[in-house]
Amino acid sequence: MIEIDLIRHVKVSGKAALYGCTDIEPMATENVRLLERLVTQQQSSRPYQGIICSPLIRCQHLAKEFSKRCKLPLELSADLQEMNFGVFDGVPFDDLTLDHKANNVTAVSNIKGQETSLHWSQLEAFFQAPAEIALPEAETLTDFHHRVMQVWQNLIIDQLSTASEAKEKSAPRRILVVAHGGVIRMILAHVLQLDWQQSTWYQKLDIAHGSLSRVSISQPKQDKKHNRLQQQSHHQIYQQLHQQVTTIAMPLLEGF
Amino acid sequence: MIEIDLIRHVKVSGKAALYGCTDIEPMATENVRLLERLVTQQQSSRPYQGIICSPLIRCQHLAKEFSKRCKLPLELSADLQEMNFGVFDGVPFDDLTLDHKANNVTAVSNIKGQETSLHWSQLEAFFQAPAEIALPEAETLTDFHHRVMQVWQNLIIDQLSTASEAKEKSAPRRILVVAHGGVIRMILAHVLQLDWQQSTWYQKLDIAHGSLSRVSISQPKQDKKHNRLQQQSHHQIYQQLHQQVTTIAMPLLEGF
Repeated sequence: MIEIDLIRHVKVSGKAALYGCTDIEPMATENVRLLERLVTQQQSSRPYQGIICSPLIRCQHLAKEFSKRCKLPLELSADLQEMNFGVFDGVPFDDLTLDHKANNVTAVSNIKGQETSLHWSQLEAFFQAPAEIALPEAETLTDFHHRVMQVWQNLIIDQLSTASEAKEKSAPRRILVVAHGGVIRMILAHVLQLDWQQSTWYQKLDIAHGSLSRVSISQPKQDKKHNRLQQQSHHQIYQQLHQQVTTIAMPLLEGF
Repeated sequence: MIEIDLIRHVKVSGKAALYGCTDIEPMATENVRLLERLVTQQQSSRPYQGIICSPLIRCQHLAKEFSKRCKLPLELSADLQEMNFGVFDGVPFDDLTLDHKANNVTAVSNIKGQETSLHWSQLEAFFQAPAEIALPEAETLTDFHHRVMQVWQNLIIDQLSTASEAKEKSAPRRILVVAHGGVIRMILAHVLQLDWQQSTWYQKLDIAHGSLSRVSISQPKQDKKHNRLQQQSHHQIYQQLHQQVTTIAMPLLEGF
């Protein structure tokens, strides 16, 4: 059995905005508090065996420190990055100019040295129908879905092979993934077999900063043998796994 | 703002079975541990103001003790009971006789003094399509859905009125609901606007015993005034609320 804990990075040290591929620092104090909780947990009876992390600094900083402190292998995976929000990525909401006259809120911001008019209505339309509306120069939700599904499948197959080679038996292999809100939501929708295109999944579920979501993965008994693993394609192996969500957005930075 | 914490009762002191309306005791040691966690939390800066509970003893026992220890108002609500699983309700899986000859697993059990043959295949069919297959003498998923939606709406409207009368302002009103896995899942599907008829919502999401799920409820600003509340129907008020899920199945009986 494999247990994968998906932790969202802490709050970032920047103005409120859609942060996707923009590489922004995490809030130092919160990051230290989260690190201390992880280090304490690591001394319990259920330690992690490895860390996989988005290369963006708001995730990587925590993962690197945790890896160093607890001597855990750390792997950076570019495909775990947040969705790229194109021209809106990292543009502070505060900097937007509101255009009341047009009865249509508009934003003006400097993108790539050129003054570009960003309409709030575009963002709103995207929030209402994220699968149909693509922001300018942004990744589509479909491409993002495809990327996250690939990295999730590869990550699990890798962990299965490692567990199989190490002849790990009863105790589950525990892996920490440090990633982003959108990535975690996409993985959860996949495991729960929900419609990832539905806007309410993004609006009605809050994945807080520094929160933990957990997926439990087990293999049917007949497939556990290492030889079997090698005879099947990765996709075949993946399809036979039983995946279950056991916790969503458990707050780690506060009591309950 | 209102924050409602939905806690599932601890494990029951009986054999593995579908426990719906069957009134079975909770495991004493786990119940005490959960009680102590709640009492400790109650001394923090975010205490509960009230408890609402299913009358079944596996929920009520905890709620009553917590109410007594912390001098909190307790309300029992019959509509918060688990789904009634009819002839399968409370029948231990262990007692089932397996009929290999028929290539169809069957169960024999004593129901109401009469020996009745309970087919495992009926249970399996129900798990695969809970909205289409009704177990004999059981509540349908549609009726269960309707009952839980009614109790949820009434509970929120009641809390809004109490908060409004008490002129509570900035700090959220915090309510503890002690209930069952099926009830909690139904409320979460409703708030997340998911299809509650989909079997995967029941199969792929594990709501552990003694776990906490949280819903955050806020009113649009213009509706906050007490007078406004009285001019509108309860259903109108309810429809305008903003509900969001902020945690699902956070384990309270163990570290993370």
